[in-house]
Amino acid sequence: MAETVSTLNPELIGQLATGVDERLGQQITFLLELDRLKSIIRRSPLVDRSRLENTAEHSWHLAMLAIVLADRAGPDVDVLRAIKLVLVHDIVEIDAGDVYIYDDAARVGKQANEQAAADRLFGLLPDDQAAELRALWDEYEARDTPTGQFAYALDRLQPLLLNAASGGGSWVENSIVESQVRRVNGPIQNGSDELWQLATAIIDEGVASGALVADA
Amino acid sequence: MAETVSTLNPELIGQLATGVDERLGQQITFLLELDRLKSIIRRSPLVDRSRLENTAEHSWHLAMLAIVLADRAGPDVDVLRAIKLVLVHDIVEIDAGDVYIYDDAARVGKQANEQAAADRLFGLLPDDQAAELRALWDEYEARDTPTGQFAYALDRLQPLLLNAASGGGSWVENSIVESQVRRVNGPIQNGSDELWQLATAIIDEGVASGALVADA
Repeated sequence: MAETVSTLNPELIGQLATGVDERLGQQITFLLELDRLKSIIRRSPLVDRSRLENTAEHSWHLAMLAIVLADRAGPDVDVLRAIKLVLVHDIVEIDAGDVYIYDDAARVGKQANEQAAADRLFGLLPDDQAAELRALWDEYEARDTPTGQFAYALDRLQPLLLNAASGGGSWVENSIVESQVRRVNGPIQNGSDELWQLATAIIDEGVASGALVADA
Repeated sequence: MAETVSTLNPELIGQLATGVDERLGQQITFLLELDRLKSIIRRSPLVDRSRLENTAEHSWHLAMLAIVLADRAGPDVDVLRAIKLVLVHDIVEIDAGDVYIYDDAARVGKQANEQAAADRLFGLLPDDQAAELRALWDEYEARDTPTGQFAYALDRLQPLLLNAASGGGSWVENSIVESQVRRVNGPIQNGSDELWQLATAIIDEGVASGALVADA
């Protein structure tokens, strides 16, 4: 990277925003903090296998799935809200990190870590917006609404697509077993029948090709 | 990257989706093609200066700006549509590449290249969705609606924030001059008065710190 001017830093930019109004200072401080999501690395590779995906670009990809696969959602799904849910759903990883879906040991403690992360990160915002974004994240986590279930189904489908399109991706690397994949991706059924048909076809092909370990 | 199974590739995944229904095949083919936006590199660094930003994560960041800075938009702005505009606005870069805003020579031919890219990329979708996404992109490009102008203002503000917060970023690297930055970022005024106040304060600080070359 090029030489830099040390007096230009996120704190100063936040102060300049506060100089416009205090609310803008909080908003800009939060938005600059979000930049760190671009450095959280996931397990799925890019389709071209050049590197692993990060959580910020994953979140964009999910939002595009929500737009394009909107016609697969049930009538009770609010698609525009689903877009917001997927944009916001992984922000807590800035503090809590990405926990691999097939790593059961690492998933212990995940919930407490993510709650603390949500408190700190959304707490950077003005109170009304902190509540608004926290409500989006809570709805995603609870998955007790059709919109939350659709968003979660997309979040399961997207790594399935990347792993399969890249020739096995994290499945091969971690010797993932067929039944694990069927269990973890089961919630896709709650999002859409057609998307679950697709997921099943992909998993079947993963087993047939040897990328997934067949059940004993 | 790990070993891969060559029979698992994007074409096969598209065929499996077509096996569910033809429309899903078109949708999944488009969504897998979008993965390439994660490999289009921009000129702005991440705030921590670890690397340059890519266009997919930039698009996510812009969508978060749209959500958080929604209260800065005028009453005629449709914020949910603005979110869609910024998510879609740079997809053409998959074929046309990112053209640096301060590189006037490279910007010749940009429009024709991007039109061809839009034809090919959105053309992967079912006709109704191709038209829907093309309309979003056209609205962003035309900037003749309050929503398009707000989206464009955010797309100018975000690299300003990254360059300033990272200590000068691409300004220092490319010896960018104050008046260029004021001209390029002028459209932020059409998005919001407060955001323009912030942009002006950032540019003033950039000049004072020496990160931007002062006008003669």
